[in-house]
Formats: sequence, C-alpha cells, structure tokens
Amino acid sequence: MTTRITAVDVHDVRFPTAAEADGSDAINRGDYSATYVELRTDGGPTGSGLTFTNGRGNELTVGAVRALAHHVEGRTVEEIFAAPVDFWRSLTADPQLRWLGPEKGVIHMAAGAVVNAVWDLRARLAERPLWRLLAEMPAEELVAAIDFRHISDALTPAEALAILTEGEKGLDERLDQLRKQGFPAYTTSVGWLGYPDDKVRELTRAAVAEGWTAVKMKVGGPVDDDVRRAGIIRAEIGPDALLMMDANQVWDVDEAVANMARLRPFDPYWIEEPTHADDVLGHARVAEAVAPIRVATGEVAANRVIFKQLLQAGAIGVCQVDACRVGGVNEVLSILLLAAKFGVPVCPHAGGVGLCEYVQHLAIFDFLRVGRSLDGRMIEYVDHLHEHFTDPVRVEEGRYRLPDKPGYSVEMRPESIARFGFPDGPAWR
Amino acid sequence: MTTRITAVDVHDVRFPTAAEADGSDAINRGDYSATYVELRTDGGPTGSGLTFTNGRGNELTVGAVRALAHHVEGRTVEEIFAAPVDFWRSLTADPQLRWLGPEKGVIHMAAGAVVNAVWDLRARLAERPLWRLLAEMPAEELVAAIDFRHISDALTPAEALAILTEGEKGLDERLDQLRKQGFPAYTTSVGWLGYPDDKVRELTRAAVAEGWTAVKMKVGGPVDDDVRRAGIIRAEIGPDALLMMDANQVWDVDEAVANMARLRPFDPYWIEEPTHADDVLGHARVAEAVAPIRVATGEVAANRVIFKQLLQAGAIGVCQVDACRVGGVNEVLSILLLAAKFGVPVCPHAGGVGLCEYVQHLAIFDFLRVGRSLDGRMIEYVDHLHEHFTDPVRVEEGRYRLPDKPGYSVEMRPESIARFGFPDGPAWR
Repeated sequence: MTTRITAVDVHDVRFPTAAEADGSDAINRGDYSATYVELRTDGGPTGSGLTFTNGRGNELTVGAVRALAHHVEGRTVEEIFAAPVDFWRSLTADPQLRWLGPEKGVIHMAAGAVVNAVWDLRARLAERPLWRLLAEMPAEELVAAIDFRHISDALTPAEALAILTEGEKGLDERLDQLRKQGFPAYTTSVGWLGYPDDKVRELTRAAVAEGWTAVKMKVGGPVDDDVRRAGIIRAEIGPDALLMMDANQVWDVDEAVANMARLRPFDPYWIEEPTHADDVLGHARVAEAVAPIRVATGEVAANRVIFKQLLQAGAIGVCQVDACRVGGVNEVLSILLLAAKFGVPVCPHAGGVGLCEYVQHLAIFDFLRVGRSLDGRMIEYVDHLHEHFTDPVRVEEGRYRLPDKPGYSVEMRPESIARFGFPDGPAWR
Repeated sequence: MTTRITAVDVHDVRFPTAAEADGSDAINRGDYSATYVELRTDGGPTGSGLTFTNGRGNELTVGAVRALAHHVEGRTVEEIFAAPVDFWRSLTADPQLRWLGPEKGVIHMAAGAVVNAVWDLRARLAERPLWRLLAEMPAEELVAAIDFRHISDALTPAEALAILTEGEKGLDERLDQLRKQGFPAYTTSVGWLGYPDDKVRELTRAAVAEGWTAVKMKVGGPVDDDVRRAGIIRAEIGPDALLMMDANQVWDVDEAVANMARLRPFDPYWIEEPTHADDVLGHARVAEAVAPIRVATGEVAANRVIFKQLLQAGAIGVCQVDACRVGGVNEVLSILLLAAKFGVPVCPHAGGVGLCEYVQHLAIFDFLRVGRSLDGRMIEYVDHLHEHFTDPVRVEEGRYRLPDKPGYSVEMRPESIARFGFPDGPAWR
C-alpha cells in the first residue's frame, strides 16, 4: 500500500503583529507570516509544513514552493523515503533553482517547508508525533536521510551512525524523564525592543510569577537603553534566573565586544546574534572576547555548511537551529549531529508563528537520541499565535509538555487560513 | 533640476540555452535568464539593471523586485545619492524583507538589480559610462556610498579613503594604457561539461586561433574525465597559456584536495569554487593544500561579509565578485576595497547574460582607482547572448575594449525583451 502526493497547495497567511511591536527587535519589525504548505494525497492524510517569514515578501516563499512543487507532485511517500537524499537534492540542488540560493534564503526556506510537510505526512501515516517517529528510527535509516555533501570534513556517516546508535541506550529513561518533567524552556515575550520600560517590568514580573526561570531580552538599541532595560529585568528575575540577550545582528564585531563589556554586569547567560549571521570568523572573535558568556546563533544561519563552520571555529556555545530556515528535517538532523560531535548544546530558535510547534519535536528528539542531556538545553517560547494551530504547544511552568498527536504539529486551523489569508482574508481587506 | 523615478518596470526574460548544454557544469544546467529592471523617470533617461538567474525561478527575483519597488518609486536620483547608504539599507535591511535573506539569495539579487539600475541612471544623467563616473568621483563620495556595517573589523572608512585617494595618482596613465591595450580577458566557452571531447578540442583550437591565452574548463565530473579533458585542452593551448579550472562547488573539502592532486600536472592557474560557496574555512583548507595553485571564488558569494571572511582567512587568491549576486554597485565597491586591502586580485565573474556587459565597468574602475595593477587581473568572457544588448561588450584578441556609451551597459534591446519574455514571448509559446 502506498500514499501518493497528488497536489501541493500553498497559502500566504499573515498575522498583523507589526502594529503592536510584538516581535520587534534591533533589525526586524514584522507581520508574522507563514508560507503554509499542504500536501494532498490519494486518500491518505494531508501533510502540513510551513516556513516562517516576517510579512512583506511572503509571496516570494509562496512562489518558491510553487516552483519546487513539481519535484513532489505525483510521487509516493514510500519512493521519497526509499531514497531520501535524492529527494532532498531534487529540491535543494535543482540545476536551475539552486542558483537562487544556493541553499539559502527564499528558495531554501521554501524547500524547508516542503520537506517538513513530507515528514509530517510520514509521521501521520505512522500515527506518531514526529519526535517519536525519529526517536524510534533505526540509526542506519536516520543516517540515510542526511546529505553529507559539504560537511564530510566535519562529520562522516560513520560518526553519525555511532552517535545515533549510542543514542539508543537509555532512551526509555530519558523519555520517562521528559514525560514527567517536560522540556525546559525560556521566554522571549518580556523584552522586545518596541516595549516601554514599564511594560518590560510588568511582563518580567508576570513571567516570574508564571514560573519562568530563564528569560530573553532584545538588545542592540542605544547601549545605554540596553543597560537600563537589563537592569530592570535582572532586578525582577533575581540573581539566579538566566538572562539571555539577543542583538539580532545589529552590531559590528568590535561593537559587539565593547557593548557586551557594558552588559556583562547583568550576568548574561548568552549573547545571541551579536553580529552578521554569515560572519563565522566574527562570531569566533566575539566568543573569545566575551567568554564565559556564550555566543548563540542560528535563526538565520542558512544551512548546515554555516553551522559546520560555526562549530569548527569554536564560534558558538549554543546552537540555535531553526526548523524551516534550513532545508527541513533532513538538514536539521545533520546539524543536531554536528552539534553533538562538537559538544555544543542545541537550543532551537522559536517564536514567530508555528516555530514553537515545530522545534519542540527537534529538541525532544535531540535529547532522546543525539545530545542526550538537558544540560544547557532550553526551547525558546513566545506566547503568540498558538491558537491558530490544531495541535498547539502546551507550556506549563516554564516547560514544554510532550506533543502526542501524529505529525509535526504545524497544521493550521482552516478558519485561521481563511481569516488571515493575504491579501484577500477578512483580516487584511 | 532633479530627476524623479516614476515607475519600476520589471521583465522576466529567459533564453533557451539549456537544450544546447551551453553553460552546463557540475551543478548547473540552465536557461540563462534576466530579471530585467527599468526605472522610468519624469522626462529623464531610463535606468536599466538586471540580475542573472538560471531559468526556472526567475519569476521569484522578478517578484522580489516588485516587493522592493516602493523604496525607489517617487524618489529622485539626487535624494538617493545625497544619502546613499540610507538608500542601500532601505533595500537590504528592510525590516520585513530582510528576513528572507538576510543579504543573500533572491531578495539580495533583486536588490542588486535595482541598485544597479539606479547607478545606470546616474551615469546616464552624467553622460558617462559607469566606470568613468566612478573613476572620476571624489574619494569621499565613493566612501560615502559604502555600508561599512559588518565589515568595519576588516576595512574602515579611513582605510577606504586612503586607498581611493592614492588611486587618483597615475590614473590618466592607466587609462591611456587601457585605451591602447584593452583589459585582459579569458574565455570560458571552450570547456563546458556538457560538451563532448571533440567539441572541446575544436573550441580550444579556435580560441587559440582567436588570440586567447587564458581559458577555463569545467571540472567536477568523474575525475578521470576531468583529467582527460584537461589533457586535451593543455595540449591545444600549449605550456604557456593559462588554464583555469572550475568545479562549481561540487566537491567536498577533502575531495577537492584529492582531485586537485590529480589535476595538478596540467598546471592549473586557479581552481574555482572547489567546494560549497559558504565554506570559508573549507576554502582556506583547500587553498593551503593546493598552493601555489590559487583558489578562486565569488560568483555565488552572497555578500561583503562572506568576501571579508574569505580574505581574512587567506582562503582565496582570486576574488571573483559578481555584479548582481551582491547588492549592486555600492556593495561591489566595498568588496573591491577589501580585496585591495588584502592584496588579492579581482577577476570578476561573468558569462550568463549581461554579466560581461556589467563587470567590464567594475574591472576597469578597479584598475584605475583601487587595485591599480593588471597583474593577475582578467575579466571572464563567454561568447553568448551579447546581441541582446544595445551596448554589447567588444572583445578583440582576448581583450575587452573600453565601453564608451553612458551607463552600465545592460540595456536590453526591446525586441529581445519581447521575443524572450517569459512565458508569453514567441520564443516560449
């Protein structure tokens, strides 16, 4: 019995968040949006995937999904997973479309949405949440899903196999632990740059009351403002809670070093995106200068080749892979394994719309089978827009509860697609 | 008197080259295409710019130009050049569109087309070819056109100013030299991977007869085939001509080192794109291993931050900046200056459609004002599709003659736009 993908539907869905300054930071101020993909099948379930964008331009990732659709339409799920790297390369190394990246930006984000929808479909057919499908998969099958091209100098298939085989040990105990305790999280909802001081104080106080012990603030405005806001937040959370800072790439390398010297008294746990996302060598210089404060990055790291270098160069102490910026589950697997090989904890990027739903699966699988530790691991959490999903994340007292429905958790409610469809939905007319 | 941009017209123009295997290599096989931009003005000339793509997906860069157009429409050329970095950031750091890159892929290539069209317009208003407009510009004005954000750790405005001021000396002599001798070039038309051996031999022989003393072949197929083809070409060109090799990123790092050991006997002058374009550290390793063979890259290096690192890491001996992959003239200026600071010759990437027309201006300006040497400098030349431009390159006996018409030389013939317009032009119906 096979399941054939008969059509790729794609929707431009945008939520008007810019007006509220929710999600505003040193460099972005957007309407959180999704390029939402549905894979229709001949009688089987529908596979759902999305890539997150920041509003204007979402039509470009939508168009890119359409440009890739012919690689998926008419194929069976079984064929795809019989030769998963061939499938992945059909999307990411198309001899004409590759030029538009390669493996970065619009075309790669669209590939990520499609790839994720295929994995969602497979998990639904297996009647398992994605994290469980992956955690139960034979090591050989996981390795066969990874394209080692351009990373083999840092991670070989044999090394990946060894990590994943080792990861079978103690898996049940780790799963029990997660079922009981949930997965640690931190909140980014307290300190957006667009919020006035009073709102920051109030939100931080509320977060502490809700049980959060790790919070993230945006920096990268005038440094005196950053210092003042850091003081407010540190005062509210107390000396023991973790305070992360996120500059969203606005600083130059030397500026990052200088500004972190000003912010160091507030005991930051990490500095995220201290400079341009492509600047591996720059991150390495910042990391050396600000130690023991960790450097974190990843939400706009384009692909496994960038992550490989960040790890080779010792540039990051925290790996913030995104579920859909890179080319979907297959590429994420390679990045989790690279991080494990280099001993760097993975704390996936979330927020936006649908990202929390996605990355919980990745963090859980990483703990169960790859990284195998919760030390320094946290999933980002932002309390926005979860109501638009049929299987929203459940976060209680600062911890993600395990999702248990089949799939990758990004199926959107039909009424949300209709209401926030751009430009014709009632929210935009 | 001011010139106001009243409308941004954009055309999807595609040439059916894939069927001929023209331009085929280890990773690309495309229909050379242009996202062609026209800036209409209130009574002044029209500004023309383009970005090159490889066929399918050209609609995405077209869409991206539309998404950027509001940053240009209604503005005057004089306003734009009064605050050129503000203008450049309006395109490349748009708080919503930036997410789609940042500064890479579809959105950045589209920004490049628009930026180049603005410079074309300015050069037309000044009644000068772009190279001359730039070469005559005060050093302060050139520096003011550059965004130093994220490169200031490698190049400061003061250093840039010093290079450009020094470049005023001897400029007239260098210009005389170019007028007399033309600018050195090499040809890539002999050794596309899709061509059979006999065609390679025949084309190489013809190139030698035309006066070419530097030719480039594609490698990255089965290495035995590469070795055989290298033998054919080296036999035809003789021991003194330069033979460049181009792997178009198909190799892993270790593979590049191993394969270049096989190809070394044919005395390659450079190995181009030995591995993934984003792999700065990988290029550095290859460079160390294959020396004195130079490593060259740039045609898909996304932005100045990648070039900065390639230079900082000693990863390249040849800087192959592309005119429209990066964000147009402003960003190219920063890359030329970075290359000069690090002492690496610039040999711009060309071929495709319109790229030769574009980059001749960059190489000439670089020689006149920045790099100030022809040592190791050559402009790529591919003998395809020049007939579609109103001011096509003139290459004689392996040398570019100086373009002398106003602008940036990528104005397309209206009949070509009509005939090759996709999908409705007669060539595609």
